[in-house]
Amino acid sequence: MLAEIKGINEECGVFGIWGHERAAELTYYGLHSMQHRGQEGAGIVVNDGMELKAHKGLGLVNDVFKHANFSDLTGNVAVGHVRYSTQGGKGVENVQPLLFRSQTGSMALAHNGNLMNEQKLRGELEDEGSILQTSSDTEVLAHLIRRNGMETNEESISSALNKVVGAYAYLILKEDKMFAALDPSGIRPLSIGKLGDAYVVASETCAFDQIGATFIREVLPGELVTISDKGIESTRFAMREQRRMCAMEYVYLSRPDSDLNEVNVHASRKRMGMELAKESPAEADMVIGVPDSSISAAIGFAEESGLPYEMGIIKNRYVGRTFIQPSQELREQGVKLKLAPVRGIVEGKRIVMIDDSIVRGTTSRRIVQMLKEAGAKEVHVRIASPSIQNPCYYGIDMSTRKELIAANNSVDEICEIIGAESVSYLSIDGLEKAIIKDKTLHQGICAACMTGNYPVKESGQTEISYTRC
Amino acid sequence: MLAEIKGINEECGVFGIWGHERAAELTYYGLHSMQHRGQEGAGIVVNDGMELKAHKGLGLVNDVFKHANFSDLTGNVAVGHVRYSTQGGKGVENVQPLLFRSQTGSMALAHNGNLMNEQKLRGELEDEGSILQTSSDTEVLAHLIRRNGMETNEESISSALNKVVGAYAYLILKEDKMFAALDPSGIRPLSIGKLGDAYVVASETCAFDQIGATFIREVLPGELVTISDKGIESTRFAMREQRRMCAMEYVYLSRPDSDLNEVNVHASRKRMGMELAKESPAEADMVIGVPDSSISAAIGFAEESGLPYEMGIIKNRYVGRTFIQPSQELREQGVKLKLAPVRGIVEGKRIVMIDDSIVRGTTSRRIVQMLKEAGAKEVHVRIASPSIQNPCYYGIDMSTRKELIAANNSVDEICEIIGAESVSYLSIDGLEKAIIKDKTLHQGICAACMTGNYPVKESGQTEISYTRC
Amino acid sequence: MLAEIKGINEECGVFGIWGHERAAELTYYGLHSMQHRGQEGAGIVVNDGMELKAHKGLGLVNDVFKHANFSDLTGNVAVGHVRYSTQGGKGVENVQPLLFRSQTGSMALAHNGNLMNEQKLRGELEDEGSILQTSSDTEVLAHLIRRNGMETNEESISSALNKVVGAYAYLILKEDKMFAALDPSGIRPLSIGKLGDAYVVASETCAFDQIGATFIREVLPGELVTISDKGIESTRFAMREQRRMCAMEYVYLSRPDSDLNEVNVHASRKRMGMELAKESPAEADMVIGVPDSSISAAIGFAEESGLPYEMGIIKNRYVGRTFIQPSQELREQGVKLKLAPVRGIVEGKRIVMIDDSIVRGTTSRRIVQMLKEAGAKEVHVRIASPSIQNPCYYGIDMSTRKELIAANNSVDEICEIIGAESVSYLSIDGLEKAIIKDKTLHQGICAACMTGNYPVKESGQTEISYTRC
Amino acid sequence: MLAEIKGINEECGVFGIWGHERAAELTYYGLHSMQHRGQEGAGIVVNDGMELKAHKGLGLVNDVFKHANFSDLTGNVAVGHVRYSTQGGKGVENVQPLLFRSQTGSMALAHNGNLMNEQKLRGELEDEGSILQTSSDTEVLAHLIRRNGMETNEESISSALNKVVGAYAYLILKEDKMFAALDPSGIRPLSIGKLGDAYVVASETCAFDQIGATFIREVLPGELVTISDKGIESTRFAMREQRRMCAMEYVYLSRPDSDLNEVNVHASRKRMGMELAKESPAEADMVIGVPDSSISAAIGFAEESGLPYEMGIIKNRYVGRTFIQPSQELREQGVKLKLAPVRGIVEGKRIVMIDDSIVRGTTSRRIVQMLKEAGAKEVHVRIASPSIQNPCYYGIDMSTRKELIAANNSVDEICEIIGAESVSYLSIDGLEKAIIKDKTLHQGICAACMTGNYPVKESGQTEISYTRC
Repeated sequence: MLAEIKGINEECGVFGIWGHERAAELTYYGLHSMQHRGQEGAGIVVNDGMELKAHKGLGLVNDVFKHANFSDLTGNVAVGHVRYSTQGGKGVENVQPLLFRSQTGSMALAHNGNLMNEQKLRGELEDEGSILQTSSDTEVLAHLIRRNGMETNEESISSALNKVVGAYAYLILKEDKMFAALDPSGIRPLSIGKLGDAYVVASETCAFDQIGATFIREVLPGELVTISDKGIESTRFAMREQRRMCAMEYVYLSRPDSDLNEVNVHASRKRMGMELAKESPAEADMVIGVPDSSISAAIGFAEESGLPYEMGIIKNRYVGRTFIQPSQELREQGVKLKLAPVRGIVEGKRIVMIDDSIVRGTTSRRIVQMLKEAGAKEVHVRIASPSIQNPCYYGIDMSTRKELIAANNSVDEICEIIGAESVSYLSIDGLEKAIIKDKTLHQGICAACMTGNYPVKESGQTEISYTRC
Repeated sequence: MLAEIKGINEECGVFGIWGHERAAELTYYGLHSMQHRGQEGAGIVVNDGMELKAHKGLGLVNDVFKHANFSDLTGNVAVGHVRYSTQGGKGVENVQPLLFRSQTGSMALAHNGNLMNEQKLRGELEDEGSILQTSSDTEVLAHLIRRNGMETNEESISSALNKVVGAYAYLILKEDKMFAALDPSGIRPLSIGKLGDAYVVASETCAFDQIGATFIREVLPGELVTISDKGIESTRFAMREQRRMCAMEYVYLSRPDSDLNEVNVHASRKRMGMELAKESPAEADMVIGVPDSSISAAIGFAEESGLPYEMGIIKNRYVGRTFIQPSQELREQGVKLKLAPVRGIVEGKRIVMIDDSIVRGTTSRRIVQMLKEAGAKEVHVRIASPSIQNPCYYGIDMSTRKELIAANNSVDEICEIIGAESVSYLSIDGLEKAIIKDKTLHQGICAACMTGNYPVKESGQTEISYTRC
Repeated sequence: MLAEIKGINEECGVFGIWGHERAAELTYYGLHSMQHRGQEGAGIVVNDGMELKAHKGLGLVNDVFKHANFSDLTGNVAVGHVRYSTQGGKGVENVQPLLFRSQTGSMALAHNGNLMNEQKLRGELEDEGSILQTSSDTEVLAHLIRRNGMETNEESISSALNKVVGAYAYLILKEDKMFAALDPSGIRPLSIGKLGDAYVVASETCAFDQIGATFIREVLPGELVTISDKGIESTRFAMREQRRMCAMEYVYLSRPDSDLNEVNVHASRKRMGMELAKESPAEADMVIGVPDSSISAAIGFAEESGLPYEMGIIKNRYVGRTFIQPSQELREQGVKLKLAPVRGIVEGKRIVMIDDSIVRGTTSRRIVQMLKEAGAKEVHVRIASPSIQNPCYYGIDMSTRKELIAANNSVDEICEIIGAESVSYLSIDGLEKAIIKDKTLHQGICAACMTGNYPVKESGQTEISYTRC
Repeated sequence: MLAEIKGINEECGVFGIWGHERAAELTYYGLHSMQHRGQEGAGIVVNDGMELKAHKGLGLVNDVFKHANFSDLTGNVAVGHVRYSTQGGKGVENVQPLLFRSQTGSMALAHNGNLMNEQKLRGELEDEGSILQTSSDTEVLAHLIRRNGMETNEESISSALNKVVGAYAYLILKEDKMFAALDPSGIRPLSIGKLGDAYVVASETCAFDQIGATFIREVLPGELVTISDKGIESTRFAMREQRRMCAMEYVYLSRPDSDLNEVNVHASRKRMGMELAKESPAEADMVIGVPDSSISAAIGFAEESGLPYEMGIIKNRYVGRTFIQPSQELREQGVKLKLAPVRGIVEGKRIVMIDDSIVRGTTSRRIVQMLKEAGAKEVHVRIASPSIQNPCYYGIDMSTRKELIAANNSVDEICEIIGAESVSYLSIDGLEKAIIKDKTLHQGICAACMTGNYPVKESGQTEISYTRC
């Protein structure tokens, strides 16, 4: 939710299950647990052994499936998707999984990530007479697979994947097989679990907990996993590179109860708060966190610093899609949005306010101001991650560089802009310490938005272009 | 939200504003901040000086007003209501404020509370030829006022209030005045604030913070406040008794950022947790709270005990009205509802689990079981209030005595039923210590549901009957 | 439909059935056949022997009941209503049947007609402390009945009916009886039928045909009919006056397949056309009628005159409620509304155009112009009823006198205004000849809107006031 | 409407306009007038000079566009479509115009007709790696055009049209041109008109009258018309064969006010009735028609025979999509569907009942029975077209041969089945006389469903296969 305020938006979550008689229902619950990864649309494709059937729509999982009849969505196999859509691709035709039928069989695709060479590939396909119906880069992969022959198999998928460049996690379903594929740098998360005899694949492990499944392992960078009634098989479509899991998944995007690369997200955030307390302590009466994503780091900061942790900001849980935003005039008169300070707590106090990140700075400024108006004596802002100075080309919809406050201002300037007594960011070292438990397992993270060091580039490109998830 | 699981449901919140040109919009935001007090229906009546106009509907404030045109709801005065409805009174005709028109003028009523003699009064009115159109006890008061003559004034309202018995907070609007009235024991909360020159009245002070208004004072027990263009006037319709504010408002119902009787709710909850840690410590590795209402007490318990506070249970924020509940079979296979344990945190640990109250015990058992399945070694349940053993007749929809686990079982039995290593409740003394700052101001609380000591009874009644809010 | 163009609007149709196990469903079909009598709202109240239950809503019968579950609307007895609402009374609370509950029983009322002294009665009731919830005059009758004692019986109903003045047909339902009442002049239609052992009452006999019931007799002026499990009983609440059935029911309002006073409506309209051909023949090539209500008269005119009857105007059957009306500019460019001329038929021809009535004249002018633009050489307008010069106070929503073209213009002026070659109206004698078969049965009609001779007046009134249906 | 009862369903109507600033609105009105050609879905694609934009949906034109904002659908050019969908193709993705975007431009297609070799062409396209997204044969044509090169021009369209076999009328829109094409036998109707300087193309001329446009000429068999800012140009993509306009368009499908091949539909139907009266007179008291499509023929029969024309059957105008069909049990008890007999007219009379056609015979039997139950002494059924004994492969969704009553029964047997006193059909000669004014213009009609003589066959086919519109 806060995402909308911040301007960091995850793009999509995928879920697949093979071999459970209530596949569609379990996919519903799995998608539900990953709702934070995309609120614009949701869909499920089931395979009842005879044909693939889709139920998709715009909106939250709840809304899309409120009139769904799961007894119509029979079959032991399903793939699902929750979608965050960028401007311009909001049509229902872009809601995934995309389902393609032909006289010889069907194929469904669900994707989390971003292809950097999508426009080029699209142009080439059209030149050969193909008609593309969506603005989704997922459709481009489907055409590449089909152009390799009517058969959807390991070979044609591998060949197609070798043509695309970017960060991606794909689920591909056909009548007799389900495929899971991860980009060669392993930037996006994708895990495999089991539920009884059934196999489950999901963007986040919280989906496994949601349905009572057990985590088995992560899909590896450059790996193509095939799941069928014969079990699970693995091939490699690209040389495995050093895994570079997206740091923002830990900092902000994933759910606290998920494990990424076997590291719990809440625990890593708490460690970020602890590292931050070591690096940048503050003289204050209490620590508060900006709900919801900064609570873990705030608890960590409080524990490390010995300051009491308090509930100084409250979030209105009922601010839904139809909430009428107060006009500028009313906001100036003091009408609050979804966050409100707790006057009885903050009045007269020196406060350490923990936030997970700052994008444009407008939200931070508003919260600091809110706290001051409620009587806070001092507000020391501590950010539990390094500053974001670069755009992401791997599937996260951030603001452009022009809008990124840290790309254009020093920390002192930021402090002045947001009106705090002091501002500090966690160092990149502190971040790595908090995330990486074991260097063998976890060779690195992608922190390109903080460091500018991009692990994947389109060959020969002069500029990194951003298209869509 | 958890309320639905627990079976404790607040009944209604009221809001009124006199003298602001954007009265309807401010009422919308005010109601929004009190959405937790009632999710079944909402309404606003505006007074544009010429006539009273209503916009009402079933559902959340967001839903009811998503197509509202505030430019049609003009006027400097408005009253609003959020409603929780008991079984049987779910029709839209029961959504408040109730608006009554006549050839000589209109009257709108909004109510939070419960009349104990509503059935008797209804029968008497019907015997005299009155036709009542709703099953709401608020309509009964309207008829009593009208029977006192066509004029809606202090006299006719006072006379009508003297006929009703119960716990109540009323807002009554007519063309030239707004009235606020509180029952003689002051069981339900009702506060007065100011926003510039405008007067505001609300069930909870969080509504004042929401719109930028300043708290002035509480409406007093037995007081009838009149607000008009001439300002604010006060009369007394009943002898003031010792104020007995509902303890459950502090324990569970109100928002943490509200002040009741000038006591902040979060702070009082944190003190409940601290008192509980003193009364009933536990050998454990961490303290966790059941979200959302028990977080404050859990922080207090952690601070007092020196144990780390952890996020051991996570709540899915996207579980909305249309969420498809998992079947019994799926739940047994491990499909979670809106609460989920964080395996990475609780695995192998001894846990103090703080909850604010136990009603039927089914939710507590489910959460304990969830934590154990996620690997918790021990679960020590600590309840931050005394046990609930009696029904409420003053406007809270609790389970019947037969369903109340504490009415029928000892603490040891409860411990066995819910499968915990140990269970302790806060003492009534501990509760009073946590709530009452100043005995002069705060002569007492109503804790009838815990102690059986009911402050208000219908004269001559042999049994306390419960009707509706 | 055309009604909306014309500005003549029937107000309401009623239907009741006693003693059929599928009472609600049959009421649905009965109301459906009377949909032309009111398109603003519809409702059914069933009596399952224990309690009265209502299902009501705004819109067409189809829309209101599309989600109705008839298995919830069980019971052998039902009353229903279709409503046309005047400006200002469009709220769903005004949709009938009105249902009033009390501790001693319930009462439902459905009404077709208009009370002339409604405002006066309403004021008196309010002075006595009654609260009225709707702007419907039907509620006034309910209060009058209740004021006569809690029992709803022949006596209290008769006494209440003697206080109201106007034209009305009521159905009143309580747990053990259904009552049907007609005003002392019998201005509005109301008939009794049988379906097996069940009794049926309806505004029009087409409702009997719709459900396979047989016509028994009409309710008589001033009669109160009681239907119960004991059968049918009749009392008289007023001296029977000469029956004065509304002439507009024959001319325009009723369905052609209904019989009113045992006279078939289509046949009477055909006779109006024949009388008109005798009174005002025209030199022409063909006769055409304005669909739908003028077709019968056009056939009659053609048959009498020997001219061929042609389909010169076609009506678009798909013009529904959401049809986007063409802007003035587009209409001037030739974009048609729901009526269109058939160029292939009218081009180069001299035409007799039959219409049932002219209210404001704007529609007639538009149709004549349309025919001319499509190539008609001459258009001779023949109106199959006398000219309307006076408002109706008995339940038909006509334009005010100021708007009535015939109240302010001579026939020659009208001819010029609408651009026809000639215009003639049927004489009042011709109308009576066409309607009245048997003077004993049919002592007269109410043609006040044509003649100014009003059969019912409020005693002592200085001006006839119009309120609502 | 009756279509649904009968089982004859037109498939689609098309409309296009080039050069009017309110193109989308005029298309709305044009489609509206052709609503009878398809009620399952509707759509408009506008061209604002920069890009093509679509607004489409399931349902009636009214419903699809009720929330449309025509100020968003700007542009001087638009094409529209109303769709009747066969089982299995009901998804919104099949609603036309289909819109295909590519990096070099867009193309929209609207189609009325049926391709007989669609399955074969679809298979060939898929073998070459194409992905088709709909089950519409219109998409097949789009792929054929694109495969001919990225340019959508006369050449690539002509080449694609020469690959398809069937009956069709296409509108194709690209940024700078609009194309209209008709199959080589001219089976489906398609006309060109003008509105000021704008060109209009439509399936029926009633669309021209609706918007005030003037008829210019029909598109010729095998002609490809190009409309652009340079005006109108014509090329021939196939040798012109003898025009064989579908006879059912005259008999039943088209609106009475349309002209097909410059023959007015109402007039041709009236002549069918007259021919029928000459061929098969009957001793009777009156002539009645089954509304709405048989009224013209009934008037013709009455005029020729000298018998009076009466309104013996009435159609309920309010039977909409959500009408709850009476159960078999209720129908047996006499509850009527949308047609009802007028007892007051038919009782005791000998009746000639005119219908335009009989498909399965069930409706005819029901109507005859209804008339008898209402007291008709004799019912002589006269059908104003020859009997239908063969399926249609050219775009009309008729019942299969097995269901066609006339394919399996003699006229005497039909008479017995439907319970009439006598049954006669119009002869094929009589039909041709009624339709064909001028043999030069109108070389013939397609009456394959009556005669079995199919004008278009897929080369080398052993069986004629039916796919979809």
